[in-house]
Amino acid sequence: MKTTRLEAFSDGVIAIIITIMVLELKVPHATEFADLKPLLPVFLAYVLSFIYVGIYWNNHHHMLHCTKHVTGGILWANLHLLFWLSLFPFTTGWMGENHLASTPTAVYGYVLLMAALAYYILQRAIITQQGRDSLLAAAIGYDWKGKLSPVLYLLAIPLAFVSPWISNSLYIFVALLWLIPDRRIERALVTQDKV
Amino acid sequence: MKTTRLEAFSDGVIAIIITIMVLELKVPHATEFADLKPLLPVFLAYVLSFIYVGIYWNNHHHMLHCTKHVTGGILWANLHLLFWLSLFPFTTGWMGENHLASTPTAVYGYVLLMAALAYYILQRAIITQQGRDSLLAAAIGYDWKGKLSPVLYLLAIPLAFVSPWISNSLYIFVALLWLIPDRRIERALVTQDKV
Amino acid sequence: MKTTRLEAFSDGVIAIIITIMVLELKVPHATEFADLKPLLPVFLAYVLSFIYVGIYWNNHHHMLHCTKHVTGGILWANLHLLFWLSLFPFTTGWMGENHLASTPTAVYGYVLLMAALAYYILQRAIITQQGRDSLLAAAIGYDWKGKLSPVLYLLAIPLAFVSPWISNSLYIFVALLWLIPDRRIERALVTQDKV
Amino acid sequence: MKTTRLEAFSDGVIAIIITIMVLELKVPHATEFADLKPLLPVFLAYVLSFIYVGIYWNNHHHMLHCTKHVTGGILWANLHLLFWLSLFPFTTGWMGENHLASTPTAVYGYVLLMAALAYYILQRAIITQQGRDSLLAAAIGYDWKGKLSPVLYLLAIPLAFVSPWISNSLYIFVALLWLIPDRRIERALVTQDKV
Repeated sequence: MKTTRLEAFSDGVIAIIITIMVLELKVPHATEFADLKPLLPVFLAYVLSFIYVGIYWNNHHHMLHCTKHVTGGILWANLHLLFWLSLFPFTTGWMGENHLASTPTAVYGYVLLMAALAYYILQRAIITQQGRDSLLAAAIGYDWKGKLSPVLYLLAIPLAFVSPWISNSLYIFVALLWLIPDRRIERALVTQDKV
Repeated sequence: MKTTRLEAFSDGVIAIIITIMVLELKVPHATEFADLKPLLPVFLAYVLSFIYVGIYWNNHHHMLHCTKHVTGGILWANLHLLFWLSLFPFTTGWMGENHLASTPTAVYGYVLLMAALAYYILQRAIITQQGRDSLLAAAIGYDWKGKLSPVLYLLAIPLAFVSPWISNSLYIFVALLWLIPDRRIERALVTQDKV
Repeated sequence: MKTTRLEAFSDGVIAIIITIMVLELKVPHATEFADLKPLLPVFLAYVLSFIYVGIYWNNHHHMLHCTKHVTGGILWANLHLLFWLSLFPFTTGWMGENHLASTPTAVYGYVLLMAALAYYILQRAIITQQGRDSLLAAAIGYDWKGKLSPVLYLLAIPLAFVSPWISNSLYIFVALLWLIPDRRIERALVTQDKV
Repeated sequence: MKTTRLEAFSDGVIAIIITIMVLELKVPHATEFADLKPLLPVFLAYVLSFIYVGIYWNNHHHMLHCTKHVTGGILWANLHLLFWLSLFPFTTGWMGENHLASTPTAVYGYVLLMAALAYYILQRAIITQQGRDSLLAAAIGYDWKGKLSPVLYLLAIPLAFVSPWISNSLYIFVALLWLIPDRRIERALVTQDKV
């Protein structure tokens, strides 16, 4: 199988996921600004998930760019990632509609965690197939973001029962971590690793 | 018509099918873990159907990879397959929401059966067009999986009225059959056929 | 603009239209075979619309295959066609849910008619741009199917108030006309035209 | 990242947005022509939004056509545009279902404004990356349409509380501005700028 078709299919699924999330923003029956207010947490959850799906799409693309040959293992590791991403509309809707209540916030983090693990498994599958000297292995390097993110999700899940605001702050922090291409931090950490 | 456009269109439809199935996972209005419990059968049915659609996408790709020229017959055989796949969200939702009751489980199996037959018809249409010495005919070989699957679905449909658990075990078994690339079994069976 | 991107976008829209139509098949809350019975007209309407969208996708592909250059006019003629196709899920759902009542059946025919006209306009726009000696003009020939179909829709719309069965028979007849590649009829009619 | 994948992903998202908007056209339960009447404003809002999304798709394509290299900044500017476009189904549904009431009409205009700004930011990001002598900078020229549209939206938002009809007339006017390729006006305005 060529990488291009795996890419095209994944793009299709991710494009649909990112778009059907907006269906959780149910059109209110009344017509005042005040009627939008109960939608605010759904909207904010949508923004957060939109950014997460955008990050996954972006990283997924770069990863497949370094992949020449697709094996059955890579294909199913990819579908496994798409599976967890496909649950984003559900957890986003549940967290948003319940004004960021504890359990939905924890479940939201759990799906983020599983998506991160699925991404890691896919990365491993590609590196295994391509060899440790491959382009992908070199491009990823120490992958401190990939290692820190699941740890922060693991922290955020129980903390949702202390305060969902802590968990959501952690989710936002991880998103910013991936969003902002802070090369200084990256280089510093890489250097630190080397020391 | 070039195979690439048939592939691209099929990929699009399959990507949408695999994603809208998740819309059957309706966001609960309450916020406890217990409120997720009634969703468990819907979730499990979703997992099963996700795997099935993944298998179809995978096999479909390999089949079209061996196809050079697309005739009107192949095109409609392909749309016929997509038609039955498009019913997966409906049967998945019906079986899941009713906690795997007998009739929905039987209907789920019926749609699996029709999709398998549609796949078989598409395979025949391609081999007819390409000749019995074609790459596809060689790649498929005796096609014991393709022959065993409909038989197991046919068994599972009436057995749903004995116990839906038997039927669902059969559906899971068929999925694993396609999922696990057990070459030993495959080779053994092929050898057995030759003897 | 290259034809490929117009094709890809149209394919995407058509793939979504053909798939979201199935969302009108609402999952019943009860679990007997009898509970599927009220869904039968929705299902049949879905089958009919699925075939129609399949025909449009097929013909659309052949038409664009003969198109080299996309102008602004062609682009908007194409979006105009996609607009009417996008109303298929609505009219299919309305006709199906109301057991093929008169008005929904007439409206279903009206949208079929408008899609046929939009297709004709797109064809004209391409031929105008490519010249009357173009490949598309030659491929279409006298285009008796393209001319007969709107006439039959125009007949079917008022007849829906006599009996929706007549209209639906006409819709099915037109679908079969495009589905069955009866070259004898085609050639005969072409010859007749020449005489 | 190659431009083609950004294009393909954007096309996918835009194709889904343009199609799920039609889901706001809820199938009526009764079967008379009169039952379609309450849907008329939803339908008209759908037509308007369909045209807007079509314009964005068209312009987006031309813009990316002039783009060789995709940076992280361009990628996120593009996702930012897709985000605002993804809110079109919500605002279209809200405005349509409430018969073009003041607040929904103003919010509809606000999302149009944000999409226009997002488009402008994306354009800036591409020109910055490609240089002020780039093909895109030359193709856009003075970009009077791109500058006039946000001004008209800004006018339309408060005017919705005077009369939603004024705002909607402005939205239609902007759409026509982009739809009709009136080169005379364009050239005249460009000349005027030069004087």
